[in-house]
Order: sequence, then structure tokens, then C-alpha cells
Amino acid sequence: MLKEAIFHRPKNNFAYAYNKDTLHIMIQTKKDDVKKVELIYGDPYEWENGKWLTESIVMEKKASTSSYDFWKGSVKPPFHRLRYAFRCSDKKETVILTELGFYQELPQDIANYFCFPYIHEIDVFNAPDWVKNTVWYQIFPERFANGDSALNPVNTLPWGSAEPSPGNFFGGDFQGILNNLDYLVDLGINGIYFTPIFKASSNHKYDTIDYLEIDPQFGDKVIFRKLVRECHRRGIRVMLDAVFNHSGYHFAPFQDVLEKQEKSKYKDWFHAWNFPIVHKPKPNYDTFGFVHTMPKLNTKNPEVKAYLLKVAKYWVEEFDIDGWRLDVANEVDHTFWREFRKVVKSVKSDVYILGEVWHDSMPWLKGDQFDAVMNYPFTKAAIDFFAKQSIGTQKFAESITSLLYMYPENINEVSFNLLGSHDTARILTTANGDKRKIRMLFLFQLSFIGTPCIYYGDEIGMTGDNDPGCRGCMVWDREKQDTELYFFIKQLIALRRTDELFGNQADFRFLDINEKGCIIYEKRLVNRRLIFILNNSDSILRIPTNKLNFNNSRIIEWIFSKGEKLQKE
Amino acid sequence: MLKEAIFHRPKNNFAYAYNKDTLHIMIQTKKDDVKKVELIYGDPYEWENGKWLTESIVMEKKASTSSYDFWKGSVKPPFHRLRYAFRCSDKKETVILTELGFYQELPQDIANYFCFPYIHEIDVFNAPDWVKNTVWYQIFPERFANGDSALNPVNTLPWGSAEPSPGNFFGGDFQGILNNLDYLVDLGINGIYFTPIFKASSNHKYDTIDYLEIDPQFGDKVIFRKLVRECHRRGIRVMLDAVFNHSGYHFAPFQDVLEKQEKSKYKDWFHAWNFPIVHKPKPNYDTFGFVHTMPKLNTKNPEVKAYLLKVAKYWVEEFDIDGWRLDVANEVDHTFWREFRKVVKSVKSDVYILGEVWHDSMPWLKGDQFDAVMNYPFTKAAIDFFAKQSIGTQKFAESITSLLYMYPENINEVSFNLLGSHDTARILTTANGDKRKIRMLFLFQLSFIGTPCIYYGDEIGMTGDNDPGCRGCMVWDREKQDTELYFFIKQLIALRRTDELFGNQADFRFLDINEKGCIIYEKRLVNRRLIFILNNSDSILRIPTNKLNFNNSRIIEWIFSKGEKLQKE
Ligand SMILES: [Ca+2]
Ligand SMILES: [Ca+2]
Repeated sequence: MLKEAIFHRPKNNFAYAYNKDTLHIMIQTKKDDVKKVELIYGDPYEWENGKWLTESIVMEKKASTSSYDFWKGSVKPPFHRLRYAFRCSDKKETVILTELGFYQELPQDIANYFCFPYIHEIDVFNAPDWVKNTVWYQIFPERFANGDSALNPVNTLPWGSAEPSPGNFFGGDFQGILNNLDYLVDLGINGIYFTPIFKASSNHKYDTIDYLEIDPQFGDKVIFRKLVRECHRRGIRVMLDAVFNHSGYHFAPFQDVLEKQEKSKYKDWFHAWNFPIVHKPKPNYDTFGFVHTMPKLNTKNPEVKAYLLKVAKYWVEEFDIDGWRLDVANEVDHTFWREFRKVVKSVKSDVYILGEVWHDSMPWLKGDQFDAVMNYPFTKAAIDFFAKQSIGTQKFAESITSLLYMYPENINEVSFNLLGSHDTARILTTANGDKRKIRMLFLFQLSFIGTPCIYYGDEIGMTGDNDPGCRGCMVWDREKQDTELYFFIKQLIALRRTDELFGNQADFRFLDINEKGCIIYEKRLVNRRLIFILNNSDSILRIPTNKLNFNNSRIIEWIFSKGEKLQKE
Repeated sequence: MLKEAIFHRPKNNFAYAYNKDTLHIMIQTKKDDVKKVELIYGDPYEWENGKWLTESIVMEKKASTSSYDFWKGSVKPPFHRLRYAFRCSDKKETVILTELGFYQELPQDIANYFCFPYIHEIDVFNAPDWVKNTVWYQIFPERFANGDSALNPVNTLPWGSAEPSPGNFFGGDFQGILNNLDYLVDLGINGIYFTPIFKASSNHKYDTIDYLEIDPQFGDKVIFRKLVRECHRRGIRVMLDAVFNHSGYHFAPFQDVLEKQEKSKYKDWFHAWNFPIVHKPKPNYDTFGFVHTMPKLNTKNPEVKAYLLKVAKYWVEEFDIDGWRLDVANEVDHTFWREFRKVVKSVKSDVYILGEVWHDSMPWLKGDQFDAVMNYPFTKAAIDFFAKQSIGTQKFAESITSLLYMYPENINEVSFNLLGSHDTARILTTANGDKRKIRMLFLFQLSFIGTPCIYYGDEIGMTGDNDPGCRGCMVWDREKQDTELYFFIKQLIALRRTDELFGNQADFRFLDINEKGCIIYEKRLVNRRLIFILNNSDSILRIPTNKLNFNNSRIIEWIFSKGEKLQKE
């Protein structure tokens, strides 16, 4: 047995409270090395005649990568306390893994055992329930629809008359969105993620000038309130984008510092290395990246904290928004985010808190900070496999499997799974215009665990390269929309929202079949399975059904073709 | 190369901010497998001509167990941001470990790299500076000294006239401690950890009746204030013991619930499963262990929280105490401890927060909860090796090494390293009266990284089995004290407090010498080393000095014998 490859450590994806009564325990062993893993456990205080009382369960091998097998078990400790160890066996030997290393037999001393001392409901990761059943739609407000030309910024170009550039404007606004809400209802989405809407100077509005004001090009607070209300009336949740890592250059406190320098009462709102602050040759203050127009906010300064928390609370309390997406969230301190969560949830307990973190996000997902992160590792794997075909089935399945077992299950269920955003090239462009690949991307995304998000226009086949290319005007001319793609996605969304197996209520796993360019995975519950066969190759493939373990079950086959679902018994 | 044994994951002992400017990065590989590890890193935003700018350092192999090698590197990212990967080489191959797995070459896409997005001073683990230089002394107040017989509880026995039992009293009090402070000054300790002093009915006072009152057998608030002041005058810090997991049976709110049951306004202060609450045949409410007289407090109830936080603040604010030791801390929710930390540190920023956690404590030591835990895994290893001789040198060195690399360095520096407490048998009893073993235990403890604690009376050779045996009356009769042991320990404390290498300012490692029953370790700084040779066997051993790499350095040899330090050039 390769003991050095065995890993377990409590209070993360390896041991966590799934809910107030249930612990999930996972262990990782070298692939195909260990034959059986048992979890030996007990309440630390249950003793009889000087002997600790334990029980055991056999753990299930849930998935594998080319390096590891992942074993999982679930326990409901009656008194919420658990000490435990693992009994791992292969053909040759059986060993016990404890917190203090390996033993041949179960140690007598309870101090050896791993410990999950107590499940406290208040500590359990607890994202809002509604998120699990939400399909998001991301809107970049300047480019979705122009509904009120009176608000157009100067030099606004006619809708769709030019390629998007870093500086041009097309006059998108809230009225435009209101005019098209029924389009979104028809598509079937039930959550909108808006990129920033607060007062700013750019077209993307990530350079906030005033966090408490709506950008006048979009409308005012009256129409924003109406927009939220109209969304809610249609069962659509609303998520706004908060840029708390840095402010815009024209944010009044930063302007005050530029003007009064060390005498400014805002001098500690940023991270000045010394005074006077300058931006040539390089800024002598912390910035986002090295962009001098995006001064980093000093989120440990109590005044800054109070201001930003006021903002966080204001839009929830006054406008009843349902979620906050947090820009560059990984570069802001954990202390701030803990307070942010407390403040926001105190106003509305089921607000969704979504952090922009592109890498391993476990430290932000322990229940005290975010409900989810933007799942870019999911994006990368899906794009690399389906759109670019730069990785094969094996690598794709491994990436997705690693990702799933990197986090607790309750985190995966609300993970924000996107295929693209205002920060990436559009999928159709990445896929070189191959619509078949786009369909598979959507099929995979919309049948996967998590909460999927569609970037505006992708559903009708819009193209566009990296920023600014991906920020083109929404195409409203039916003639220019890919309505087949639209109906295909609408179909998938409907399935996701009506069939619990399609959505979040089932176990996901790749099946052990490795066809060239074809992936097969299943979603399963106790007595029903959905099997997905996605042929990402250019050839016609035959899949032997005997490998899919149908047995004598009743089978219904769906074939997606030209945007329709054909059903046959 | 055994890739499956290689492990790294950020934001714990594998990657942490040592201080506001410095990151420590660690990786674990199979023992003697990898020959060289380099850390490749850069600021995520530093690019030139489309290429990410990176640097590299060679990581140092710091220590090994029989399973793993631990490699460490230290980086000061100029803009506080870091993306990184590892280049691991053995004789045959070189591979790159990234967050997304292994590669043959450095990936182009920065999304592959591990990320420590930003070092925020406010998130850095930050225990009080003074703790690193503190030697603690644990006092069980009922048994240290009786200075005021007027306060004696009824049925108080004459001092030392009987073996300690679960129910007997000997009348120890604050006046007794005050009378003997100079004894502690002479010994050289500079911190006292008091087991509970609040109003309670037992002799151990872990069954709190009133968290805001001093137990009358010890004195009143006037004399307690004087005690703290007198300690401070002598440079001694004071730490109290808070039992927040559960209350005592006679705690007024619990009595109110017993009396009024569901009508009590305190009904949600505990965890009643249903009403009426009863304790036969078994309690129908959560308890500590299964002890019905210790009802578990509902620390998520805002009223309970407010009450306990008031208590936490009160003793710091009003009496200027320096530390809180938290009983059964692992069974109280993390949310509560985060608030506890904030409240206590807001009153006095350098209060030491010490949790009672006997197992892997990483989840409590991320900077947002405790400064340290009671290091019982250290205790266990030291006792098993020195006192019981139930493990050999190899296993001992491994246990200590695993423990050191299980936590960040800044955590190890303030870890509360005890050899025994009111909850364990006294070391001399465990060692079957062999004083030579006790000396080695103290030498090891007092020369190790961390903040050592001496259990009252151990320094003069007191004996006693597990609770209640270990809670005997302090022996004040000089004739009955082991003064040689006392002087030996005094000597060690003096060395620890005057020689930075002896204390926390040096790197600890076992030397690669494996003699039967003898351990050799060193503490080193740039140009000075202390080498410790502890012969735990019954034989005289010869240690070849050529193995100790003295080279041509100047050597001063200390030999500890009969409590004295002999020095020779
Ligand atoms: Ca407009
Ligand atoms: Ca007394």
C-alpha cells in the first residue's frame, strides 16, 4: 500500500458538516491501490468498561483521477461529536490511519483519532436554498438594450453600429432591460447578474465614482427599484456587482487625496507608500494590478469599512437585491469579508454572496465569508475540452473530478458555473464558430452540479474576442439571432428546472468508458439515472449499451437535435 | 518520482503569511525521493511582451519523517501578491507542480499557478509578542497555598493532611498565592495560568455558578485586583480559565430552567431536546460529555453570546488580566470564538487567547480565533518517550517533527507546551519516580520552540496520579521539596530567558544521528548553534563529535549535573 499518498485532514473538503446533523468524511488514496476503506468512529465520551465504543461503515469509492481514488462516507453523530480513524486494506495488508499516523491496530488512546469535535449549525456552510435552483443570466448593462435615448451619454453610437471598443458607448440602460424581461422569462432564466451599475465613467463601470448612486446613463433609483420589482414579479433574482477592492480614479475620497495629499481626511482610505502620491513613473500607492486609475481601498481602515458596509447594506435594504458579486474578492482581506457577510445577512438572510476568485477558493468557502466563487476552473476545463479541443476526454474528466472533490458537496451545489463573461472571449469565437461545440458546452454546463450562468447573447450565437470584443451590443434582430441555439438552451433550462436529476439533486460521475473524444457521465438518484453521451469528436461513435449497466430498467432516450428534444421509449 | 505523495495547498501550514511582508511556502514530498525543489513565483500582474515575469528560489529541505521530506521557502513579494509553482527534480525527471496538477514545463496560462492573492496585515496570524518570551506556571488555586483561613470552606482539611479526592477542600486562596509570589519570581517564571477562579461549588471550579464573581473561598475582587497588580509588578502575566462550553449545575439560568422549564426566559440558553428537561435515565439536553450537571451553553443564542462576551471583556477591562484559557474550546462554535477574539482584543490588544484543543487545531489558528492551543500532542510525545519509554527515538523525533510542520512557524512560537496539567498524571508519577527522566523532560520542554508551562509542584518533584491525584496540596516544607530539581529548572528557565537560541529565536531540528535511546537536536541561528544531547537510555553513550559538524568553530560545553550548569571551553 502506498501510505505516503493517503491524505486526510479535517475541516475542509475532507471532513465537513453537510448540514446540522450530517458529517461527510473523505479520504484520498493512490489510484487503484487500496481495495477497501472503512471509517471507524464514535462519540468521544461513550465508553463502557474502560473501552471506547466505536462503529464502522464501509466508505464508497466515489471517483478517481489518474493519481487518486476518492472515498467518501456520511455519518450522523447522535450527539454531534465525532472521533474517527480509517481502516485501509489492500490484498496484502490492513492499516489504520489516525491523526498521529499509521498503526497496525486500532490505538487504545483516543487522542490518536481524528476529531470533528462538534457540529454547530451556526458554523455549517449555508448558502441560500434558492441558489441551487437558479439559472443565471449575466447582463452588461451598457450593451443589453437601449430603452431610453434621453439618458444616452454624449457620443453614444447607434445600437450595434460599431465593434465594441474600450471607450465607446451604445446607450444601454434599465429601460432597455425592462423592455426585454419577457425575453428572459421565455428563455427560462431566473437570476440576473448585472455587472456594475453604480456611477462610474467607463462603459464597464468597474471604476466606481459613487457606490451609492446609479450611473445616470442607466437611469435613476426609481427605475432601478422598478426593475428589481419587475424581476421579482417574474421570479427572477437580482445580483449586483460590488467593486470593493479598489475605487475608480474619480471617487471623491481619492480626488480629495490627490488634491490635499497628506492633509486630506481620506489619506488613509488607500495604501499610500508616501506623500505626495504620484502616478509617474509608477504609482506610489497600491493599485489593482499596476493601474494607477484603480487605487486599492484600505479595507482595514474602520472608516472605509463602515462606508463599504453601508453600501453593501443599502442596496439590499432599500432595493431588495438578492445577491452581491464581489469583484477581485481574493485580494480583499478575509476580515472584511467576514464582516460583510454578517452585515448583509443581517438585513436579508438569503442573499447570495459570490466572490470573484479564479483559483482554489477553500479559504473563502468555510461558511464565514462567501457562498460561492466564480468557477473559472470549471470554465477552463469545459472550454479547453469542448471549444478548443486542446485537452482530451481523460484530462477533462480528471479536471472536473478533481474540482468536485476539492470542495464540500454543499459548496459544489451553489458554485457559479460560467462558460464565459465580460472578462473572456465569447465561447462561439473560441470554438471557431462551431455551433455543435457550443451546444455540448451548454448541455454540459446545464446538466452539471452548481448554478449555471449564461453570458448575455451567447444563447443566440453572438461572437466576440477578449475584452472589449466580448462586450458587443445584444442582437435583437430576430433574423440575426440563432434561434435554434436559443431553443436548444431554452429546452435545457426547462429540463434543469423541472427534472431534479438534471439539476442539483443528483450525484454526478463520469462513467468508466473512455471513447475517443466522447464523454459519458451520469446523474443518479436512488432509482433513476440520467446518462449523458456527448460526442466531441468528428466521427460517428457506437456506444455499447452493455457497458452502461442498464440491466432491465425501463429506458427513455432523448436525442437533442436542431434544438428539439426527441423522446423515444 | 512519487508524484502522488507530493502535497501542497495554500492558506494553512503549506502557505501562510509569517508577517505582513513575508510568505512561507512549504511542500511535502516522499522521503528521500525528490532531490531538489525550486519555487517559481511572480506577481500576477507583472508581464513583459506577453510573458509573465517570474523568479525562483531553491527550497530548503528542513526536516524529514519516515514518510515525508518537508521543503520550505520564504518570499517577500514587493506588491504583496504571489502566484507560484514548484519545480521538483530527482535523478530521472523534472516536473512542475501547479494547482491544476503536474506539467512537464511551466504552463503559459497563469490560471494554473497556486495563488496567495494578497498579504493583508489584518489577516496575518498575530499572537502577542510577549508570549514568545513567557514561561508559564499553572496554579490550581485550591491547592497552591492557604493564606487566609477565614475564607476556608466548611470541612476544609489541614494543608496536605490527606490525599486529594474529588470532593475535599484544603482552603487554597489568593492570599496564599500572594504570599508566595516571590517563590515564583525566584523560579523565574513570568506568566501564571490559573484554573478557574469564578464562583463554583467544586474544588476545581470548572462548574461555574457565576462568571462575574470570584469564588469566595479564594477571596474577593479587591484581593484579586491586588494579585494581578502584584504579578504585573513582578513582570508576571496573568491568564484566567473560562468555561464557556457549559455552565455548572447551579448557574442561575440553568436553575431557572429546571424550575420553570419551558416558561423560563432562559429556556434557549441551553440545548434542550424537549421539555420538561430531566436527567434520568439520561439527560434530554446537551451536556459536556454525558455529565448532566454540566449543561452545554447555547453559544449561538444572542443573549448567551452577549452574556459570555461581557464576561470575557469584564475581567480584562476591570482587572487587566493578560490571557484567557478556554476550556473545551473545540466544542464551542467558531462563530462565537471569532466574536470573542474581536471583543477581547478591542479592550486590550495583546491578550493571549489559548484554546483547549487536544487534536489538530489548524481550523482554530488561522488568525481569526485563537493565538494558541494547549499542545497535548507535544505532551504525549514527550511523555511517551522520556517518561514512559513506550516509544523510541525515531518515533519521538517523527512525532515532534510532524507536529512542527503541521503548523505555521508563527503558531509554533506561541504554542502552549505543557508536560502535565490538572487533567493528567504528574510526570514524576508517570516516570515511576525516575528523576533523571523528569530532568530530560524539562530540558526538552524548556529548550523547545513555543511557550512552556510548568504545572505547580512538578518543579519540586511532587507526585500524583490522574485526577484527583495530580491535584495535591503544594509542598512548602523545604525539607520535602526536591531543591536540586528546583535549581535545575530555575537554571533552564534562566537560560531560556537570557539566551535567544535557547528560546524561540532559533530554528529547531533533530540531527541526523540515531543512537539507541539518545536524541540529539540543535537550535541554530546564523552563526551560532546549541546542540542538545539527551541520553534517555540506561547506558553511557559516546557521541562522535565529527558527526555534529563542529568544524573549526569555538565550542563551549555545558553539562547539567545535580542542578548545576558546568561550563567548559
Ligand atoms: Ca439609453
Ligand atoms: Ca483559605
